[in-house]
Amino acid sequence: MNEELFVHSLQKIFPAGKQVVLGIGDDCAALELPGMEQYLLAAVDQVVEGIHYLPGTPVEKIAGKLVRRNVSDIASMGGTPAFAMLSMALSSKKDLMKFHEAVQKECEKYGIQVIGGDLSGAVSGSVYSFSILGFAEREKMKTRSGVRAGDALYSCGAFGRSFPTGWHLDFEPQLSAGKILSRCPEVHAMMDVSDGLLKDSLRMAEASSLQLYLDFDAIPRRDSATLEEALFDGEDYALIFAASPEFVSPVNTVKIGEFSSGTPGRLLNKISINRKGFDHFEYE
Amino acid sequence: MNEELFVHSLQKIFPAGKQVVLGIGDDCAALELPGMEQYLLAAVDQVVEGIHYLPGTPVEKIAGKLVRRNVSDIASMGGTPAFAMLSMALSSKKDLMKFHEAVQKECEKYGIQVIGGDLSGAVSGSVYSFSILGFAEREKMKTRSGVRAGDALYSCGAFGRSFPTGWHLDFEPQLSAGKILSRCPEVHAMMDVSDGLLKDSLRMAEASSLQLYLDFDAIPRRDSATLEEALFDGEDYALIFAASPEFVSPVNTVKIGEFSSGTPGRLLNKISINRKGFDHFEYE
Repeated sequence: MNEELFVHSLQKIFPAGKQVVLGIGDDCAALELPGMEQYLLAAVDQVVEGIHYLPGTPVEKIAGKLVRRNVSDIASMGGTPAFAMLSMALSSKKDLMKFHEAVQKECEKYGIQVIGGDLSGAVSGSVYSFSILGFAEREKMKTRSGVRAGDALYSCGAFGRSFPTGWHLDFEPQLSAGKILSRCPEVHAMMDVSDGLLKDSLRMAEASSLQLYLDFDAIPRRDSATLEEALFDGEDYALIFAASPEFVSPVNTVKIGEFSSGTPGRLLNKISINRKGFDHFEYE
Repeated sequence: MNEELFVHSLQKIFPAGKQVVLGIGDDCAALELPGMEQYLLAAVDQVVEGIHYLPGTPVEKIAGKLVRRNVSDIASMGGTPAFAMLSMALSSKKDLMKFHEAVQKECEKYGIQVIGGDLSGAVSGSVYSFSILGFAEREKMKTRSGVRAGDALYSCGAFGRSFPTGWHLDFEPQLSAGKILSRCPEVHAMMDVSDGLLKDSLRMAEASSLQLYLDFDAIPRRDSATLEEALFDGEDYALIFAASPEFVSPVNTVKIGEFSSGTPGRLLNKISINRKGFDHFEYE
């Protein structure tokens, strides 16, 4: 089962009900709680040894990545992070206090209070999970859907070679850009790119029932990445958003594509890419 | 470092600030959000392969334990569970959909909506983490602290032999008892017992700056557990609470101890128990 089908099955198994404005399938869930003017945002992301970092990575780097990839999810809704919980299954408790101090240092930067957690042993390999809560203004929150036919796709950040450059550990989430863009009525949809530009931009197209043409030459590439690396590498933590093509962005952005009516989630470029590990991408 | 010192260091590293009524160190955190009449409760608990269940345990059992141990945390505050997020690092995706369906089945029982999650691979061993949100009435929420000298300790549930009997996979969290007890003004403190009756009841004593005498003969034991098993085994998911000794409980409870002024967290019984794996318990 590919990832899109997987998310659809999850949405069937876990239907969004009362108070849930946005459930499974976006960067954050959004809740409409009684009495609250703003939406409560909630997301969870993990950092797993051997998957998201190599054994031997300093705990400060692990802590930074863990906090910032969650902040990036809040950023993509135009939200403000506020609280977090930390759960960990560790095969070794070496540097545990140093890790906690690094988490707190990161959290302070973004105004996050750590309010709880859970610590367990693990038979082998360490797994860190961070659940984040935040706020978003009701009228301004952006999601992946809502793109209109004729909108351009913009990026705020560059793509490719996140692992070899160390960007995946050192990136800065686009929190202020996300907030500024969320206040622009011309911005119709927004998300962060963690699974690769191609996959994530097509998710935005699919969520909005549109097709997408990507301007390959315009895509900002990190560290002289190849087109393939820029499209597939992932862990970019850039923001992408859709707005009318005349939009004058208040933050540094590049126009990298165009949405149009047609088959939801279809890529219009004529390319043939089928990178190993991304089994569900087959284009004409 | 023993677990109590560990929690104290965490409380120093992650100080509770604005909007945080209750931070690290209780069964749930409690937040006072702008406009909300009730407190928002938040907790996270994991189920880890080789630690909380043995390899080969059916996914339905894992799902049940994962959801219910979190529900038990909400129960201990007298709260109502509402939303949850599920993050998993899995070494195998076998039965993944069956697992999700089992989580949803459990969640439905307790009125929980799953609103998000994260799925990752794991190099070996599976780690499941469940973050739960709920509500508690401001005036009625119970915590571990607040016990008064002269209060009796009551239990709602039995202790010991949770692993050999399978109780740790099949227990029923005391959600309705928790809610009923939270409405009783005579109940001054409440918590759930997951780390063993001795350790957890002394945590309540310590949080309330009192000492505790346990009536060993009165402790309800599961499956003819020995006293040692009842005190140390853990994973009981029973509620314990403190109330005045004249309290007439509206739910089935047993009086098992008495709090008094003195050294915070001290056990008054004259016993000599030092069970392997519980390095920080040494009594006269």
